Amino acid sequence: MKKIFFSLMMLAAVAASAQQRNPVVPSFAGAVEDFKPNVTNQLGHQYPMVNSQGAVRAQLRAPEANAVRLDIGGRKYEMSKDENGVWTGTSDPQDVGFHYYQLEVDGASVPDPGSLYFFGAGRWGSGIEVPSYDMDFWQVKNVPQGSIVEKYYWSKATESMRHCYIYLPAEYDKNPGKKYPVLYLQHGNAENEQGWSAQGHTGQILDNLIAEGKAVPFIVVMDYGQGQNIHLVEKYALPAPPQGQNAGRGNASDAFSVVLLTDIIPMVEKEYRVIADAQHRAMAGLSMGGGQTRRITLANPTTFAYVGMFSGGTISVEDVQTAAGFQKTNKVVFMSSGSKENPRVMEAAEKLQAIGMNAVGYISEGTAHEWHTWRRSLYQFAQLLFK
Amino acid sequence: MKKIFFSLMMLAAVAASAQQRNPVVPSFAGAVEDFKPNVTNQLGHQYPMVNSQGAVRAQLRAPEANAVRLDIGGRKYEMSKDENGVWTGTSDPQDVGFHYYQLEVDGASVPDPGSLYFFGAGRWGSGIEVPSYDMDFWQVKNVPQGSIVEKYYWSKATESMRHCYIYLPAEYDKNPGKKYPVLYLQHGNAENEQGWSAQGHTGQILDNLIAEGKAVPFIVVMDYGQGQNIHLVEKYALPAPPQGQNAGRGNASDAFSVVLLTDIIPMVEKEYRVIADAQHRAMAGLSMGGGQTRRITLANPTTFAYVGMFSGGTISVEDVQTAAGFQKTNKVVFMSSGSKENPRVMEAAEKLQAIGMNAVGYISEGTAHEWHTWRRSLYQFAQLLFK
Repeated sequence: MKKIFFSLMMLAAVAASAQQRNPVVPSFAGAVEDFKPNVTNQLGHQYPMVNSQGAVRAQLRAPEANAVRLDIGGRKYEMSKDENGVWTGTSDPQDVGFHYYQLEVDGASVPDPGSLYFFGAGRWGSGIEVPSYDMDFWQVKNVPQGSIVEKYYWSKATESMRHCYIYLPAEYDKNPGKKYPVLYLQHGNAENEQGWSAQGHTGQILDNLIAEGKAVPFIVVMDYGQGQNIHLVEKYALPAPPQGQNAGRGNASDAFSVVLLTDIIPMVEKEYRVIADAQHRAMAGLSMGGGQTRRITLANPTTFAYVGMFSGGTISVEDVQTAAGFQKTNKVVFMSSGSKENPRVMEAAEKLQAIGMNAVGYISEGTAHEWHTWRRSLYQFAQLLFK
Repeated sequence: MKKIFFSLMMLAAVAASAQQRNPVVPSFAGAVEDFKPNVTNQLGHQYPMVNSQGAVRAQLRAPEANAVRLDIGGRKYEMSKDENGVWTGTSDPQDVGFHYYQLEVDGASVPDPGSLYFFGAGRWGSGIEVPSYDMDFWQVKNVPQGSIVEKYYWSKATESMRHCYIYLPAEYDKNPGKKYPVLYLQHGNAENEQGWSAQGHTGQILDNLIAEGKAVPFIVVMDYGQGQNIHLVEKYALPAPPQGQNAGRGNASDAFSVVLLTDIIPMVEKEYRVIADAQHRAMAGLSMGGGQTRRITLANPTTFAYVGMFSGGTISVEDVQTAAGFQKTNKVVFMSSGSKENPRVMEAAEKLQAIGMNAVGYISEGTAHEWHTWRRSLYQFAQLLFK
């Protein structure tokens, strides 16, 4: 299994590297002319736009520029200038869901001034939403609204103030005597603790599911899973990364494990009304966060009853059998993937089912290693929790 | 008084207009070479930097560009290219505090990919923090931490979901039987409901003041004060704007007044543990938000006992005498200004004191119509509230 996980990580690394030297191609010529301003545009901006094919059209006023390009999905699309100095260019059709992109102006890679900004791919920059037939589930609706709480707290492990976001269900403030289960939900590599609320729409997905009676009310904690690894490796004498594994990545799970168990879970269980046992504690993550979930839940086999890995590898029968108490404690192992990435999650789930585990595989149709896969995964996983 | 307020608004409009056609000047030649990476940089970015004079140095890789400029404080500074295609330029010294800025690449005005992004000047874009001797009061410290709650709610007035941020003091969740006073705190023109928490550091200012015993714990509600004016003007038959006044601006106060009184205050008093009377209700705002505060508190003279106008004009003796019940209800009228803008707040406060009002004037030394003036104003005003 580890091999699958590391293969995924290598793929991601290769993709990131390719992005840096991605090819320049002509503006998409076959676009249907039904472009609409995007939902992630800045207020009052017409561009960027997306059409019914999922093609992205960007526009920038740069009267003195020699070359402007739209950089999205591993390609740079040529843009062309009109008589007013306004450049326009169109990408090939993109997968449904959310994508990071940027503009290149005479060799400078910059955010599109027309878009809102998101943290991903290691930078704050532009994002765009290619509409999908099933986007309704993460929209803001007139249903009872939970809230996203921004919280700083002191971390003993890192000896610094840390920063997280916490989803509280709508009923939380109305039931001062009630305690709630908690999902610890992690972002991917080169993303941060805002990803799940901003790109992932965690608040809307949970509010809508709870309003429809499809999920029980629970708390979601979204923290930052990277950084400060070296410091923690020294302080806590963390194990050396396994042979052949990227050192930074290997340590990321162990370092985050220390912070999660030493600081985050105790802070949450002190500051909020939480049922503090394994049967009411879940961990999930996307991509690298799925790898962290796998490693941390197997290393602490009686701490979390619910485990979710979204595009983040699989758990094997051998993994379960090696982690004493894991099978007895576990209520759900959920493994998902976009149909354009790793479909082996279904096979892995079947193998766990064969030893009596409640394992669930899920394939997000038509999507790759991107946010719409992970929103759909959260939507599915949330319905399995704490029931 | 109205004249002063409208003069300020005219000045702001003129400044915005000047910004669009601001002059191009050479990079600052007299800079002391003690530049440091800025606190508002994206993680891992060395540039932009600020030196001990408050000069801003920006850098951008744009190998094929003809001209790159740093656009800040009403001027565009020439940047120059090195042999690696990296452009560098330095501004004249800026006032201490927070400033919006952007880069211009061959005529395209774009965010600096090295900075974090903020909403102001009508766009999400780059911001920079010129350190001040007194910046300690808004830093994140290891003191009991309140939280900033992101909340959507249904607005009957606008018939749409609206979005606000709410500061809850650290002790709020620990005292389920206790009710709290509320400050309604508004942003300025072309800013939004995130300004006070992001640029203003409301959470840190309040946490630190409460930890030091200088402010009593209270709730702060930060909502969006613009937009949807025309819809509301029709629906609520709001008065036409006064002669000579910008229609959009004139309606902004009245439209926001409807939303505040119909939706925001009732939502807050329903969803949170709030003492729902005038003696425990304050309103304040910066610039346009100060103008809204003035207009709304005078038009509802027994609704708010505390009134704060930060760079937002003044309240006159005539204003008070025309608004029946205002003087009897009011506990504090606070009027502030940067020393580089309108110093008449001190005179206005003295006149109100002469009729027996508890009026306070405050001048922020060395700052103009910018966020450091308003952070300092909140720091002063918060200490006067609910005592």
